Amino acid sequence: MDNSRRSQVDPFIVMDVMEAARAAEEAGRHIIHMEVGQPGTPAPAGARAALADAMERDAMGYTVALGLPALRRRIARLYGEWYDVDLDPARVIVTPGSSGAFILAFTALFDTGARVGVGAPGYPSYRQILRALDLVPVDIETATENRLQPVPADLGGLGLDGLMVASPANPSGTMLDRAALSGLMGACAERGTKFISDEIYHGIEYERRAVSALEIGDDCYVINSFSKYFSMTGWRVGWMVAPPDHVRVIERLAQNLFICPPHASQVAALAAMDCEDELQANMEVYRANRALMLDGLPRAGFDRIAPPDGAFYVYANVEHLTDDSRAFAAEILREAGVAVTPGLDFDPVRGHGTLRFSYARATDDIKEGLARLKTFMEARGAV
Amino acid sequence: MDNSRRSQVDPFIVMDVMEAARAAEEAGRHIIHMEVGQPGTPAPAGARAALADAMERDAMGYTVALGLPALRRRIARLYGEWYDVDLDPARVIVTPGSSGAFILAFTALFDTGARVGVGAPGYPSYRQILRALDLVPVDIETATENRLQPVPADLGGLGLDGLMVASPANPSGTMLDRAALSGLMGACAERGTKFISDEIYHGIEYERRAVSALEIGDDCYVINSFSKYFSMTGWRVGWMVAPPDHVRVIERLAQNLFICPPHASQVAALAAMDCEDELQANMEVYRANRALMLDGLPRAGFDRIAPPDGAFYVYANVEHLTDDSRAFAAEILREAGVAVTPGLDFDPVRGHGTLRFSYARATDDIKEGLARLKTFMEARGAV
Repeated sequence: MDNSRRSQVDPFIVMDVMEAARAAEEAGRHIIHMEVGQPGTPAPAGARAALADAMERDAMGYTVALGLPALRRRIARLYGEWYDVDLDPARVIVTPGSSGAFILAFTALFDTGARVGVGAPGYPSYRQILRALDLVPVDIETATENRLQPVPADLGGLGLDGLMVASPANPSGTMLDRAALSGLMGACAERGTKFISDEIYHGIEYERRAVSALEIGDDCYVINSFSKYFSMTGWRVGWMVAPPDHVRVIERLAQNLFICPPHASQVAALAAMDCEDELQANMEVYRANRALMLDGLPRAGFDRIAPPDGAFYVYANVEHLTDDSRAFAAEILREAGVAVTPGLDFDPVRGHGTLRFSYARATDDIKEGLARLKTFMEARGAV
Repeated sequence: MDNSRRSQVDPFIVMDVMEAARAAEEAGRHIIHMEVGQPGTPAPAGARAALADAMERDAMGYTVALGLPALRRRIARLYGEWYDVDLDPARVIVTPGSSGAFILAFTALFDTGARVGVGAPGYPSYRQILRALDLVPVDIETATENRLQPVPADLGGLGLDGLMVASPANPSGTMLDRAALSGLMGACAERGTKFISDEIYHGIEYERRAVSALEIGDDCYVINSFSKYFSMTGWRVGWMVAPPDHVRVIERLAQNLFICPPHASQVAALAAMDCEDELQANMEVYRANRALMLDGLPRAGFDRIAPPDGAFYVYANVEHLTDDSRAFAAEILREAGVAVTPGLDFDPVRGHGTLRFSYARATDDIKEGLARLKTFMEARGAV
């Protein structure tokens, strides 16, 4: 029995780092984890309490495919609170993580062979999910002067059926401001290019609020998740907002592809939305960590960085230090005991010269990691 | 913005029944639910306790894509306990429900345009997931004398790249015995047709144990779930067993498509596997309900039925009563206050003359439902 062609997606290079880190820990070493893309904090206490309570009262069977009505209403309300957007709850689709939302969006919008633009560097799974669905990911090599975000001029000649953007972005943490987002959406509308906005890092912002595509227009898909700001990665619950006339089609797809998002996770997510104090305390940790990183990374010789607008990553250009980010990340793990992500997962072309540092974990870990990086780079003669 | 062609999947007709039942209940009527395909019982108490405990000790972040190693080992052990099959845990892939396993299996095995046979009547989402992936579902109209299961002779001339079977089946509850399953797997091997076995109702058997495809050979995909026997539908956790040389490909797909199955559900599922007393108590309810159905349905005039070998459904031929099962189901709901599923979801061609009755709920509900059906059919002059 052979595997299909569409199943031949790229491996995650970071998995090699994670496996090497795990093996080092098993051998007794202490490793600082700057490779992970998730909070070290659990779901808010109120979310866990709500689930513990619900488990004793309810059989927790299937929910309807679009998600618990109360959760859809609460998510709609969030758009009023965060963006002053009046959103009809009927447009909110609760999904099994943003991953489930990508599958639904791509399936609902594109037929075999369709070309979908994704920024490079960018979240690697966009490309791989598109390939698995027999769609064609088109890498858009973004420019440093555009803060590693696509701009309308990048779209010329690409013949895109769709464009996927992320703001704040992973791995760069840069955001599209209102003018930039509006410009991209307008350029897409002119070209008949369907627009999908990944807003999974909204809420984790430092200087100003992130702009939602829904502030600009309704002719787009917006994807978000409880994983990051709400600190619920492992729960696999997210959401998508679609144009009103697309909801029925997406509902049928969701019924068949997923039946429903995990019931327990939906109950926890609903309660998490009212745990603002705990979530803001998490944000204080990210703010402190970010300040440490922006100070400590340059001191350790990683000085080609831009301050991230949001998320919890710093993307560093290390071309002057290596032409093989994979080997360099392995060296940093081996010599410094710090796990970092080589840029190749995010940008197959230029990622040989970049690294992603995550500051999602506890502040003490960040301090220790930065100290280790400095010692390592001094020994290497790079500082 | 238009939707794709591949997104135009069929609606579930049972959803109309469920919506009508909900509306009737909202209006104050009491409805007996024989339309639902899920247990009325919650996850086992031990599963819920394990999760409540884990939530206080662990951040419940992402797990590795293939699932918690302890859960993979425990599932492998189940194959020894249930089938006397020695299974390498490395072949076990924990999935977001059997739904996630279907997506992974179809993506890992088939390219655009591939033809995959599914028995009719059968679980409707097979067809719709295949369509969403731009694959071609090929309905195999099964024969009553073959107990509504496909046989090798049915495969001739269909040019199938794959065959999907289910035993016990939904909606019929019939099983493929060892000879029948072996015959189908042999016929597929001869034709180069990839074989996928849906074993989601294993454990819910009445006269004899269900046979796993893994008892016969390894060149197949086997899909199962914690939804039915383990009473965990809403938790969205299942598993798949694949040939050893397919696991790495599936792992990459799973990393990108799902990241991981819900962590909380995996913790609960692991504990559920050691809650045999509670699960067997649930089985006693199904056994009692089945006996009531096999006695009560014929008395109510639904006498064209076959005793189900497993699962918790009776599939009734009602051609002598109606040529429009959808209208008939609506009439039964309106007049008798019993929700049942028209066969059209399972068999678009012959389902106009069939109904599916579920006996997954409490025994008192089954008694009341059968009494109502009898009264209704007497009033209709059918008994």
